[in-house]
Formats: sequence, C-alpha cells, structure tokens
Amino acid sequence: MKTGAEYIADIRKIEPCVYILGERVKNVVDHPIVRPTLNATAYTFDIAQDPKYSNVATATSNLIGDRVNRFNHLLLSQDDLYNRVEFMRLWQNQVAACAVRCTGSAAINGLYASTYDVDKKRGTEYHKRFVEFLKNVQKNDLFVCSGMIDVKGNRSLGPSEQADPDLYVRVVERRKDGVVVRGAKAHQTGAALSHEILVVPSRVLTEKDKDYAIAFAIPNGTKGLIYIFQHSLLDSRALVAKDIDLGNIKYASSFGGTALMVFDDVFIPNERIFLNGEVESSQTIMRNFASLARMWEGGCRPGVMDVLIGAGMAIAEYNGIPKASHVLEKLTEIGYLGEAIFGSAIAGCKYCWVSPSGVHFPDPKLCSVSKLQAIHNFYEALKLTLDIGGGLAMTMPSERDFKSPEVGKYMEKYLKGADPFPTEQRIRMFRLIETLAAGPDSCALHHGGGPMEAQRITIRQRTITEEKKKLAWALIGVDGK
Amino acid sequence: MKTGAEYIADIRKIEPCVYILGERVKNVVDHPIVRPTLNATAYTFDIAQDPKYSNVATATSNLIGDRVNRFNHLLLSQDDLYNRVEFMRLWQNQVAACAVRCTGSAAINGLYASTYDVDKKRGTEYHKRFVEFLKNVQKNDLFVCSGMIDVKGNRSLGPSEQADPDLYVRVVERRKDGVVVRGAKAHQTGAALSHEILVVPSRVLTEKDKDYAIAFAIPNGTKGLIYIFQHSLLDSRALVAKDIDLGNIKYASSFGGTALMVFDDVFIPNERIFLNGEVESSQTIMRNFASLARMWEGGCRPGVMDVLIGAGMAIAEYNGIPKASHVLEKLTEIGYLGEAIFGSAIAGCKYCWVSPSGVHFPDPKLCSVSKLQAIHNFYEALKLTLDIGGGLAMTMPSERDFKSPEVGKYMEKYLKGADPFPTEQRIRMFRLIETLAAGPDSCALHHGGGPMEAQRITIRQRTITEEKKKLAWALIGVDGK
Amino acid sequence: MKTGAEYIADIRKIEPCVYILGERVKNVVDHPIVRPTLNATAYTFDIAQDPKYSNVATATSNLIGDRVNRFNHLLLSQDDLYNRVEFMRLWQNQVAACAVRCTGSAAINGLYASTYDVDKKRGTEYHKRFVEFLKNVQKNDLFVCSGMIDVKGNRSLGPSEQADPDLYVRVVERRKDGVVVRGAKAHQTGAALSHEILVVPSRVLTEKDKDYAIAFAIPNGTKGLIYIFQHSLLDSRALVAKDIDLGNIKYASSFGGTALMVFDDVFIPNERIFLNGEVESSQTIMRNFASLARMWEGGCRPGVMDVLIGAGMAIAEYNGIPKASHVLEKLTEIGYLGEAIFGSAIAGCKYCWVSPSGVHFPDPKLCSVSKLQAIHNFYEALKLTLDIGGGLAMTMPSERDFKSPEVGKYMEKYLKGADPFPTEQRIRMFRLIETLAAGPDSCALHHGGGPMEAQRITIRQRTITEEKKKLAWALIGVDGK
Amino acid sequence: MKTGAEYIADIRKIEPCVYILGERVKNVVDHPIVRPTLNATAYTFDIAQDPKYSNVATATSNLIGDRVNRFNHLLLSQDDLYNRVEFMRLWQNQVAACAVRCTGSAAINGLYASTYDVDKKRGTEYHKRFVEFLKNVQKNDLFVCSGMIDVKGNRSLGPSEQADPDLYVRVVERRKDGVVVRGAKAHQTGAALSHEILVVPSRVLTEKDKDYAIAFAIPNGTKGLIYIFQHSLLDSRALVAKDIDLGNIKYASSFGGTALMVFDDVFIPNERIFLNGEVESSQTIMRNFASLARMWEGGCRPGVMDVLIGAGMAIAEYNGIPKASHVLEKLTEIGYLGEAIFGSAIAGCKYCWVSPSGVHFPDPKLCSVSKLQAIHNFYEALKLTLDIGGGLAMTMPSERDFKSPEVGKYMEKYLKGADPFPTEQRIRMFRLIETLAAGPDSCALHHGGGPMEAQRITIRQRTITEEKKKLAWALIGVDGK
Repeated sequence: MKTGAEYIADIRKIEPCVYILGERVKNVVDHPIVRPTLNATAYTFDIAQDPKYSNVATATSNLIGDRVNRFNHLLLSQDDLYNRVEFMRLWQNQVAACAVRCTGSAAINGLYASTYDVDKKRGTEYHKRFVEFLKNVQKNDLFVCSGMIDVKGNRSLGPSEQADPDLYVRVVERRKDGVVVRGAKAHQTGAALSHEILVVPSRVLTEKDKDYAIAFAIPNGTKGLIYIFQHSLLDSRALVAKDIDLGNIKYASSFGGTALMVFDDVFIPNERIFLNGEVESSQTIMRNFASLARMWEGGCRPGVMDVLIGAGMAIAEYNGIPKASHVLEKLTEIGYLGEAIFGSAIAGCKYCWVSPSGVHFPDPKLCSVSKLQAIHNFYEALKLTLDIGGGLAMTMPSERDFKSPEVGKYMEKYLKGADPFPTEQRIRMFRLIETLAAGPDSCALHHGGGPMEAQRITIRQRTITEEKKKLAWALIGVDGK
Repeated sequence: MKTGAEYIADIRKIEPCVYILGERVKNVVDHPIVRPTLNATAYTFDIAQDPKYSNVATATSNLIGDRVNRFNHLLLSQDDLYNRVEFMRLWQNQVAACAVRCTGSAAINGLYASTYDVDKKRGTEYHKRFVEFLKNVQKNDLFVCSGMIDVKGNRSLGPSEQADPDLYVRVVERRKDGVVVRGAKAHQTGAALSHEILVVPSRVLTEKDKDYAIAFAIPNGTKGLIYIFQHSLLDSRALVAKDIDLGNIKYASSFGGTALMVFDDVFIPNERIFLNGEVESSQTIMRNFASLARMWEGGCRPGVMDVLIGAGMAIAEYNGIPKASHVLEKLTEIGYLGEAIFGSAIAGCKYCWVSPSGVHFPDPKLCSVSKLQAIHNFYEALKLTLDIGGGLAMTMPSERDFKSPEVGKYMEKYLKGADPFPTEQRIRMFRLIETLAAGPDSCALHHGGGPMEAQRITIRQRTITEEKKKLAWALIGVDGK
Repeated sequence: MKTGAEYIADIRKIEPCVYILGERVKNVVDHPIVRPTLNATAYTFDIAQDPKYSNVATATSNLIGDRVNRFNHLLLSQDDLYNRVEFMRLWQNQVAACAVRCTGSAAINGLYASTYDVDKKRGTEYHKRFVEFLKNVQKNDLFVCSGMIDVKGNRSLGPSEQADPDLYVRVVERRKDGVVVRGAKAHQTGAALSHEILVVPSRVLTEKDKDYAIAFAIPNGTKGLIYIFQHSLLDSRALVAKDIDLGNIKYASSFGGTALMVFDDVFIPNERIFLNGEVESSQTIMRNFASLARMWEGGCRPGVMDVLIGAGMAIAEYNGIPKASHVLEKLTEIGYLGEAIFGSAIAGCKYCWVSPSGVHFPDPKLCSVSKLQAIHNFYEALKLTLDIGGGLAMTMPSERDFKSPEVGKYMEKYLKGADPFPTEQRIRMFRLIETLAAGPDSCALHHGGGPMEAQRITIRQRTITEEKKKLAWALIGVDGK
Repeated sequence: MKTGAEYIADIRKIEPCVYILGERVKNVVDHPIVRPTLNATAYTFDIAQDPKYSNVATATSNLIGDRVNRFNHLLLSQDDLYNRVEFMRLWQNQVAACAVRCTGSAAINGLYASTYDVDKKRGTEYHKRFVEFLKNVQKNDLFVCSGMIDVKGNRSLGPSEQADPDLYVRVVERRKDGVVVRGAKAHQTGAALSHEILVVPSRVLTEKDKDYAIAFAIPNGTKGLIYIFQHSLLDSRALVAKDIDLGNIKYASSFGGTALMVFDDVFIPNERIFLNGEVESSQTIMRNFASLARMWEGGCRPGVMDVLIGAGMAIAEYNGIPKASHVLEKLTEIGYLGEAIFGSAIAGCKYCWVSPSGVHFPDPKLCSVSKLQAIHNFYEALKLTLDIGGGLAMTMPSERDFKSPEVGKYMEKYLKGADPFPTEQRIRMFRLIETLAAGPDSCALHHGGGPMEAQRITIRQRTITEEKKKLAWALIGVDGK
C-alpha cells in the first residue's frame, strides 16, 4: 500500500488539466488552494499504515485476499457498515475536513451490486469487467473518485428533454472498441486529485434516455477531461493565509479540490464500460449511492460537531467562563444534536439489506432521517458555537497584522483572554471556528446525499403506508374493508 | 405460562387494597377505570402464547432453561436489547397503550446486576436470594411491578434531610427476621394489578441515608400496602364512555392502573431483601434503571407515532384530502420524528456495555438522546396530528348522542365526510386522536426515564470532555499544555 | 348594561333546545358541564361594570353614543385593535379560559364592512338592516354569537358539489317574508348561551353556490335550532369534579358550551337577512373574520402562557427548586414564546387597513404569523410546563380521595412538598396545569382562525412576490427584463 | 446636507491611521476591502437627498430646526421608532449590507438621555456639552460612529479586576483641560470611515471602576487612534473579486470597515467629555443602547430575508422549478420567520417608554424577543435558501474562469439553467446567495445587540415575576399569603 507521499508523487506525474482563477495550473499539487485538500487525501493513505488506526482504515478484500484501504473495500457485512460510520467520525475528529474519497466508495459498491444484477438479468459481462477494474484498484491502492452529479440544466426536464442534450453526460459516438462521451459533472470534490474517475448516471432514466445510461472508469489525466476549479470563500482565504488564518491549519479549505469536470468528447474503451443503455439500473444506482452518502454523513457530521464542542470549550476557557451555565447548556445541546444524527445512521446500518451481489446497503429511511437531522442540527451547532465565540470569530485581524512589528503588539495586548492562555492560542481558535462555521460544510451538507427534499421523499415513501392506517383502524374496532 | 384470563383470575383473588375516587374498591378487576389497563397487562400474557409473536414476546431463560415472558427475561445479549426495543414498537402498533410491565423488567435487570456487584464487593448473599426470587417469577409466569419513584417532598433536600423522614421509602424497624418499611411510591402504573412488587431506591444516596438503601420484593396484597388511584382526564372519561368515546376502545386510559402506593409499615422478611444499607449501589441502580427506561421508550414512542400517522391518513381520507401536499408533508414529518427517536435507541443498544453479572445495559448517552427526542418529537407529532384532524377531535358529541333516537340522526347526517366512509368510522377515528393526544402520554413522556433535565445531565457529562478540546487544539497546531 | 346575573337569567328564560350526553337538558344554565363556561360569559358582563376594567372592557359606540360592551363595539380605529389584543391578554390572565364572545365580535365587524360594500355595489339595503340589528344589540347589551364553520363533508368539494347539499348551511325555501335555512354549524362555542346567533358563510363561494351565500341573525331559542353538545375530556371531568379537580375552579372546561348547532329548517324573516346570494362577498367575509380571529388569539395565547409561567413558578417553589437554572430557563423560554406571538399581533394592528365602512382590519400576513406562532409556541409552552410539573400533573388522585377520611391523610402526608406550602395548594396547582395542558386549547388553537395551512397560505400569498425577486436582481446588477 | 461624494472626500482628507493585512494603508478610501462598506456609508448620505426616500431617511431636528439625516436624529416620538425600524428594512431591501451608522445613532440617543439624567441628579453640565456636540454633528451632517464594546479580557472579571487594567477603555491621566484615555474597542464597524467617534462604557460598572466610567467624543484621525482591520472571509474574497464574485456587487463585504480600534493614550479635552466617573449611569447606557440595537435589527434582519426570498425565487426559476411545492414552502417559511422578527420589534416600539430627556426607548423585553428570533430565524433562513440553491452556491468557479477564453465557454454551456435566463445571471445569483449566507451576518447577528444569553437575561427578568404566580394562585382559589 502507498504512503501519502507516494500518492502525491503520482498526482504530480498525472498532471491533470486544471484551471484555477482562469489560469491553467500545471503544478496543481503545490497550489495553495489545493494543498489542504491534498493533505487530507494523502492522509487517507497514511492513516491506513498507522498501526493505531489500520484496523479501522483498512480491511481484508474478498477479491484479492490482502488488506486494502477501506475506501476501496466492498461493504460485505453489517460490521463493514458500522465500521465506515465510525471511521468517518474518527476521521473528522482528527481532520475536520472532507475525506474526499467517499463518493468513490459509494460508486464502487453501487456498481459492484448493479453490474451483478444487470448481468443476472441480461447475460451481460459488466460485473466481470468491474471486478477486474476493482482488483486493479485494490492491488495498486488507487484513489477512485466518483463522477456523479450532472449539471442538470432545467430540473423539471429529463436528460433527453433539455434544450442542450449535453447537460447530462452522454454517449455521443459509438465505436467498435468503445464510446465517446460528452457532458460535465458538477461539484467534483477531489476528482482532479484522484487516480481514477468512476462515472455513473445521476438521475432515474427512462427509455428515451438510453445514451445517458452509461457508467465507466477513466484514468485521471485522460485527454478531454478538463477541471475548472470552484472558488469558494475559503479558496479566497487560502490565497491570503499561510498559517493561523487557515483556521484548520493543515486541512482547511478542504473542498479546495472541487471542480466542474468537463468531458470534452472523451473516448472510453469497452473494457472500462460498466453500463451502456440499461436505463432500468439507474434507479437502483441512485438509491444505493444516496443511502451510502447519507450513511457516512451520519459519522462525518457528528465528528465535526465533536470538534465544535471542543472549540467552544476552549473559547469559553479563554473568555474566562468555562462553567457558565449557558455555555454548558449550548455545548450539551451540540452533543445531543450530534448523537441524534449518529444514532439514526447506526440504526440504518443495523437494518441494512443485502443485495444479490452480497453488498450490504443501509436502510434508506433511517439514513435519510440521519441526513435530514444532519442538515438541521449542524446549523443549530454552528449557531451555538458562534454564539459562544461572539464577534471575534468574524472580526479578527489577519495573521499578518499579528506578526507585524507595528501593530502585532496591540493584538497581543488587547486580544488576551483569561490567564494562563497565550493570546495566539485564542486567535487561532477563533480562526478555527470561523473557518469551520463559514465554509465548506454548507455544500457538503446540502449537496452530499441530496437536499432536504430528497430526504423527505425517501421518508415519505416509507412512512405513508396502508399498514399504518390499518393499525389505527384496528384500535377503533373498524375492519377497514 | 399463563393466559391473560388466568392472570386476571389471579388478580381477582389477590384483592389488593385499592381506593378510587375516595372509595375502597374490592372488585378492582371490573372497575371501568381499571379494565382497559388490565386488558393491556392481560395481553402481555396472551401475546406470549400467540405463535405469531411468541418469538419476540418470549425468550429462553438462562436460569430455568424454559421459555419465559420477555418482560421477565434478563438482557444477556445485544440482541436481547434490540429485541426489546422492537417489541415495544410492535406492542404500541397493536395496543397504543402502556405495556405496564417495563418498570418491573428494569428493576429485575438492575437488581440482578447490582446484587451481583454488591456480593462481589461485600461478600453478601443478595444475588443468590434474588436469583431464587427471579426463578420463581419466571417459573410461575408472574407479573412483577417495580416500585421506584419516591414522593420526594422538597427536591432540594436528600431523603434524610426532609422535614418528614418518610418522604422516601425507608426502614423504620429492624427485626431479626426482616425489616419494617414505611413511605410511598408515586406514579405506580400497574402495581395494583401485579403479582409482585419489586422496590428499589429512587435517588443517589449518601452515608446518612442508610435506612433508605433498601431493595426488596413483596407480594401484591400484602397487609399495609395501600393504593390510591390517580384520577386523570382519561379516567374521568372512562366513567362516561362505553365504546366509541374511549377512542382506543380496548386499551384506552391505559394508565388507569396508576396509583400512589403507600407502605403503611409493611414487614419484609429477610429472604426478600436484596439491598440493605449499601448506599453506594443506589447510583448504579438509578443509572441502569434510567438507561433501560429510556431505551424502550425509543421503541414505544415511535410505535405510537406509527398509529398517529395511520390515524392522520384515515382522517385525511374521511375529509376527502388524502393527497393534499400539506397533509403528506405533516405525515412525513411525523415519520421522520419517530424514526429519529427509534434510531438513537437502537444505536444505544449497539453501543451497550456488559455488567459483571452479564446483563447488557445500553449506552446511557444515546438513550438519553433518544428520550429527549421522544419528548420533543412527540409534541410535534401531536400538534401535526391534531392539525390534520381539526376541531372535531375536540368538539365531537358523545357516543350517547350518536346512539340517541332524537339527535343521532343529525350526527349521522352532518358529521359525514367523504364517500364511501361511514360517519361512525370517522367519529371513532376522531375519538382515537383525541384520546391519544390528550391523555396518558404526557405522564409517561415526561416522567418515564426522567424529565428533560435528567437527559441533559446524562448527555452533558458525556459531551463536555477534555478529549474534545484536544481535538480542536490539534487542528490549530496547539499542544494544549 | 346588564350584570352577569341578569344575563344568566336571560338564558334561563330562553331555554335553548340543548342535548347533552343523549338527553334533552332543559336547565342548561345549571348543568355541571355548562356552568364553568357560563361563568366566563357572565364575567364578560360583569367586567364591563368593574371600574377597574371598564375602560378596556367597554367603549363608546358610534351608533348609539353610549358605552357598550367591547365585544359589541365596532373596531373603528387602530387603538380599538390594540385595545382588543390587550383586553384578551388581560382576560386570559384572569380567566384562563375562552371569553366565548370573540366570534360574534368578528361577525359583527365583518358584516358591518361587507354589507356596506355590497350595498355600495348593488344598491341593496343590507347595511341599514344590519345597523338596526346592531343598535338593538348594543342598546340591550346582548351576547351575539357567530355561526361560522359549516360541517363541510368532503373538503375537496364545494358546497353545491357535496353528495348531501345540506353540508353547508343553505336556503332551502324562499318566501316573500323571508327564507328557510337548513344545515349545521360545527364547533359552536357559546352559541347555546347567547342571545343572538349571527350566521355567515364559511367558505369562498362560486356562482353555483348562491343558496349558500346567506347571512342572517336569529335569536337563540328559535324553533328548529338544536344544539348537540360536544363531549371533551374536560366535559367528562366536569361530571366528576366539584372543586379541586376542575383545576381552573371557576372557569374550567371553558368550552363546555360548545355544540354542533343544527338548523332544522329554520325560518329567517327578511329584516334579519344581511346577505342573500351575493357570492362575491364570501371571500372578504372569510378573510376579515380570519384576520380578526388570528389577531385576538395574539392576545389570548400569551395571556394563557402568562398563567403557565405563574403555575410553573409555583410548582418549582412547591418542589423546593424555584431557582434551579433549568427551571428558570424553561420559564424564560415560555416568556419568550408568548411575547413573540403577542408582538406579531400588535404589529398586525399597527399595519391595519381601513375598509370603506370605516372598520379597521389588521394586517392579514402579520396576524397569520402570530397565529402560526401561537400554535407552535403553545405546544412548546405546554411541554415545558409539564416538564417542570413532572408526573403528578397526570397521576394525582382525585379530590374525593383527598377528602376521604380513610386515605386523605396519606395524600396530605405524602404529597407534601417544600415548606411552608400546604399540600392542598400543591395539589390544586397540579390540577390547574393538568387541565390547562390537556384540555380545550387544542381545539381553539388549531381551529380558531384556521389550521396551520390556512396561515401559511395567507403568508405565502404575501411573501412570494415579484418585488422580492427584483431586490435580488438589483443587487447582482441585473435589470430583470 | 452632504452628498455621498462629499463624504468620501472628507474621509480621504482625514487619513485615519489604518492597518490592513499588516500594512499601513494611507488611501483607505480606495482599498478593495474597504470600498464596498464605503459605498454603503456614502449611500446613507445620498439616500437622504433622494426625494423618493428623504421622508424616511431624514427628519426635522428639535435642536437645529432643519432636516437632518435620520441617523443623527433623536428619537422623540413613537413614530420616530417605527420609522427607524421601517427604514432599516427598506435599507436592507436595497443594500443587503450594514448601514454602519446605527451604533452612532444608539450612542447619540443614549448619551442625550443619560447626560440629562446625570445632570439632573448631580448638577453637572454634560447634557449642555452634549447638545452642543450634537448640534454641530447635525449642522455639518457628520457621520458619528460609536465606540462601545471593550475587548474585555477575562469575562468573569470586572474592568478593574483584570490582570491588565487596559482591557476596558479607561482614563490613565487626568489633566486640567481634559483626560488621557487608553484601551481598545473591538468590532468597530465603520469607525475608520466616520467623522466622529462617540465612546461609551460597555459594561455595568461598580464604584471601583470609576476610571472606566468615561464617555467622550473624538474626531476620527486624532493622534493615538489606530485601526487594525479585521480580515474576514469576505475580506479575502474582496482581494480576488472584481464584480460577479462579490455577489452583492456594490456593497459586498459590508463589514470591510470593521476594526480593532486602539486608543494609544489619546487626549480628550473637557468640552468633549460627557461622563467622567458617574458609574451609576453605565447600566442605563447599556440597557438603552442594547434596546435600540435590538430594535433596528428587527428591521434589518427581515430586510435581508426579503432579499433571500427574492434570491430563492430567482434560483428556483433558473433551475426550472419555480412552482415546486417544497420550494414555495421554504420561501413561505422564510417570510414567516422574517415577519416574526419584525413584528416583535414593531411591538417594542408600540410599548416604548419615555426617558426624562424626552428620548423614546423601545420596550426592552420585546426587543430582546425580536433579537433572539433574529438569531434563530436567520439561521433557518440561510439553511432554507442554501437548500433551494444547492451545491452551486458553494462550488461555482470564479469570475476569472467565466471570462477566460479557454474555459469560459464550458461554464457558459454547462451552468446554463432553464430558458430564457442567461447563464451569467444564474452565476451572479449563486454568488449573491453564497456571500449573503456565508458572510458578515454571523457577526452582526451574534454580536450586535448582544448574544443569545443577553437577550434571555432581559426576557427572564421581565418574565419571572411574582405577578404571574398570583394569576395562577387566583385561578385555583388560593390567596397566596
């Protein structure tokens, strides 16, 4: 298995076609906007080799028999599910930033299961192909990123109904040896920093959408694959900050690797095609992908909230009020809100179902419950943390001021809190709160696993059932026809 | 194992000393206020013999080798915990009323574990005694009710500090062959309908509270044991209603068996004493009892909410608007809120811990999270259900009016909803909503497993920990001393 | 102006056709279910003569020049609106039960305005007729009750589309000297205890609903007017309780006068008809009626919440924990929630609009905001109050037990709280909380002024406006066509 | 009265001592971080001359008889209060950024009232001095900024108890002609862009804090007055963005003028001292300042939320789902939440009280209710808006990418939404949402008018009163001693 440094060397070699702030960036690895995210992805390799964590960060593959990185591992038991949720919480406790590799993990499991089903039904050979692909990934310890969400254009229209047919990734040419695809995937976190891109459809498809029912793998760096990087507020900050002002000094701006990924007529050879026109599998892929994304958010989000609690505790100490009852109350509330998210996700693992391929998928309803709580509760947690923090989380002068010979002394003197804590520690903690609160989480929160309405639809379908009505009927002594 | 009918015959024989509305009631079994609750307790026997449910409602005892009622079964595995939560949800789906026997179940498990610990530490023989007691209970399929909550007087004072020393149950006389106890236990649901009362302390005790550190079993009907029944609104209703107006026609007014249980100097023989002065065990008993009470509420409450969803669906149909988006949205919300409670309780089972005795207790933090959600979410569910229902849930004329030859016809005509549903069905469903919403749940909700603050204390202790602060420190590059 | 006693004498004379629990009740005035409500309605007369309150409880009529009861007063200024909201809060502070006369007040103002508009448009003489009616009401200090909400049947169908055409009150015969009406009005609080019934349509009507566009006044006691009384849980209680168990000992069960009011072919003479076929006015009547109902709820609900705060304070004292931070926090929260309701209602008065008739109606959006908060916040307040109260709010034995020579002593001893408060006071306070929490409010809360969705529709129509989009466009430098 | 351009010329002349990112900035007026805020402050002058708004943006001074900018106007009537709240909503509708001048307005009114009271009590001449100061401000149309919040160090210690006595601004030297002050004020929005700084204490003071009981005015640019600018995420953005990426293109980063303001031994002449040692007045100043700050937030916050509604409507259109019921529901909710804040603030104005000086101050309880709702509801609104927006609010590439000849075409093609809206418009709107959601509001929200706990204390003091307990006592028939 690779070290983080080896992985970084790989990416340096790949030289993906990346644009940041309107410029082609050859050396993406050392770009200040990208580095923090790269630190996180590199840590997914290093943690797997850390004896303290390898138990949770790796697993024994059913395909190659060896230990593999857990992000490349198939979820073949209930414990694999529990483990993933717990791993994500542990991860966030240490990193407080996206692990980036979860979408790949969802696509791996989703396609393993779906290709199995399609082959069973249609006599195709997708599953065999996919197993070969996955074995290679596991053996060479590659970082696979999923290409999921299409840009979608007019949301009320299907792929083939759009004014521009390219608003969902599609096959534009069919050759003997493969297909040519065109389109773009949005919000691609870490794709530019990966070894392989694994593309799946992002919408339930109908018969007329056959050209959109395409799943495939493609090495990062392939010709025609272009990344236009996002520019979020934390990306702006990354251009100015060196240390303190990053807040989370090593991993800050963790979505710094997020991009619009364009497929400008990219050729995909047959052996890397895992679905091709089988529109009926799109629904299963969507549901399974979503369940998993919601499930690990149930570990991630509480993990970040653990950090918020710690940061709130620290600020209360710096402010001299670590025992103020309203502070304790707010911290307790964050703890309550975090465990509620976690609890539903764990219950989702408990009530998993097993696909014919053997992959275990968590209960969709409970995972949607967890995700919906994640959205609601995380905002509450931000509000409470910022309220404990007060104005300085937002009005802190820069690290350059703090290091300035002319005005640094004023910050040192006037931003001092309670003894014995050094001023700098207090400043750093406010920056952590600022960047955790303001930043990348809104996207992950609202986008990863789908928005609030997607959760509600899943819950609704499983809540409003005739069985429930019969319970009420029985209690009033009515037979109900 | 007994049938429900055999159990009722037992209680008829016991003739406990019961007062209802200021009168001594000899035939408690047939009293209209008591009958619905008795229907529920009798069903705990019948369900154990129903082949459809016996798997979940019974278990194989480690003590006697036979199948025993699950309420009398020790929780000796994680699956025993899951099973209990699921059983409670199933129970509420069918009964929508308290199963009454959970407090006994908590006391059985709590004392089994605590007597084990005390004996280990002190060389006493409580555990052996208790095992004998429990074997007898299991063999004879007895209903054990716990006597837990003392009346407490001034909450800011401990038992021995009260103006009246009897405000917590205590030993007032010590004899060679046993002790005499005095005091009262509040909110005793079902005690008057049980075979055995199992009394435990309800507060963390200090050295000066030795006389209060008393646990024992006593057969219902023992001299000096007096019940003064509560009179709730549903109890008032039970005096007027025969059928429709009970709402939940068989089990309504499920707390109809709740009483103030007075110990007017009751003698307890040595072989039925399970703690006597070991104040240190009070804390463990309290915590374990509370964890369990909160855990099964995590099955109960969602089970009732399933019924509320069904009732809401039915009312929407009767009103002709089963597909109105605001109705679907409200029902979905109840589903979401119920699963969130359930999820945390299930996670509490997953992260259980094993006492030296082998009894499995769920994670206290997650159970408190579940219980706190139960309180919050159930009010939301009531609000939403009543909002779907509208005014008729409250302004419905009585069943006597409906059956009246003079005005029944007007109700038949004017309370008709959408076709093809009969008016009577609609009336019955409104009554179900009224009684579910207004009634017994507030007590169970706020009292069972403790009030909101009790949950928050449990969560607080496990949330605000130095480890969390260290997570934040690490992220800002601070060593933290 | 009448005294409360004179008013009661009036009702005794009227002998309305009332059915309670399936029986014709001749002496409705002394019926235990009715008395508490009658105490409240009688107090609307007495308070007007109390020098301490007459300023707020009466006003000078523009029609007859004299002081009149404020419930019979037209809202002709912004101060009249403020005054009404403040009066309702004062009322609830003293009575903690419905004043019953608000719907009449809404109908008076609504018809005064609508008849004015209709006459202007159509040259009819409804307004003149109505002024005559109102002058008589004011001069003779009569209690006018509105008949508003029809029974409605299938909510997805209009009045004339129902399987049974009588599910909305309608004209079934037209004579030279008047009309004959048939139908039923639901949830008629206090109608049976009034002097006059003022009937208005309860739905927006279309051209084919002409027979349903009927407004009229009819004296209580008129032939064909039949009341079938609701039987709520508090009504059940009223049959059992004499004093303590009523909770709110004088006014408890305040909706004890609520009935299904049937019009079994009732003749209405021409001079008492105020609308007859003018379907277009139904929308205005609905909107104005609803705005007012929501507005005074903005005084009522916080007024009840003030009482809940007081009761919570008292219980905390009886329990010995008046300064516990979690108790103070909960009471503060109730205060916050109550003022939020009140604030929006007051703002609704500030942004009132003036109808051509001179009647001032509050801003519909702000009143709906207040009402929606009322629903949400009142449940929160109940939850918090019951949580402070704990189990005894639900498990208290009856007043008969407390007065029993056999077991009263046990209650006296064991239900004692902190010194120096007498046990009885504590028992009474728990009963107050029980009855305030469990009882009549759900109906008023969800029904009065309409359910949640009705509020949201009002808010939606006034929130999602093109002007708002233009604000956003301007900020991003877009002209927006 | 000045134009905005004249005001900017004034500031250019003043050349305040400003540090940004560790560098002394001479030309603060043209700095990209400062300009947007300066645009807002300049608009406070221009709007006063706009005939469309001058009615609301100016008022006739009681001191000089002329029209003056409303920010310099004393609140001498209830209408002045209403007007201010409405003005702030109108302001935010147009600017969606801080008006910056409200703290000055609060200090002006607070000191006018407090100096009046102190003079009455002590025979001092502060009020006369202050009136002279204010007349000059009004005549010359100056922008007065308040210096309020001290840096505070250890929050559990008073000013004179701190390890460093300078952590609250204090007198370090007393001369015949004035005093020398030292210390620092935090979160000084706009101070560096003002004509005059009006300093008041920020804490309730005791006798030993006499040197901290100092209020004075000082012209911006005075020697020893040093500003160290904050560096928030929007400040980072302002360094990168030129147009689109500012979101709110003219006023974005509205807190770009916020600084730590250091008094490095600044001399204050006697005629500009308005309090000097009168510790008792600190409480009144605090309370009045806070009430006003909370009151106008009651206009501001709903004003921003109006813009969020508009932005949400626009995004829904661009996404092709303007009528989706979940979108309408979310927008309605934001409308509800905004009006609730507004309503309480307006009610706060209605129940104002008049200080002996004639200044009208709003009701503290209702203003705290409004502010607390502002905090809670604004987070809800952000959550809902971002949920409507989805991932692109966070993952949008930069304006430089959009304008790049190489990759701009991909953004044009793939970020297109529904017809007929141009891609650029959609991109701009996402940027508006991003910057409104992530940015300056957290500080204003949690800091302006105090954090959540400050609101709760105000509410608590006015909620938990003996009168409330007496209401409950009366209802249960208890005299209550």
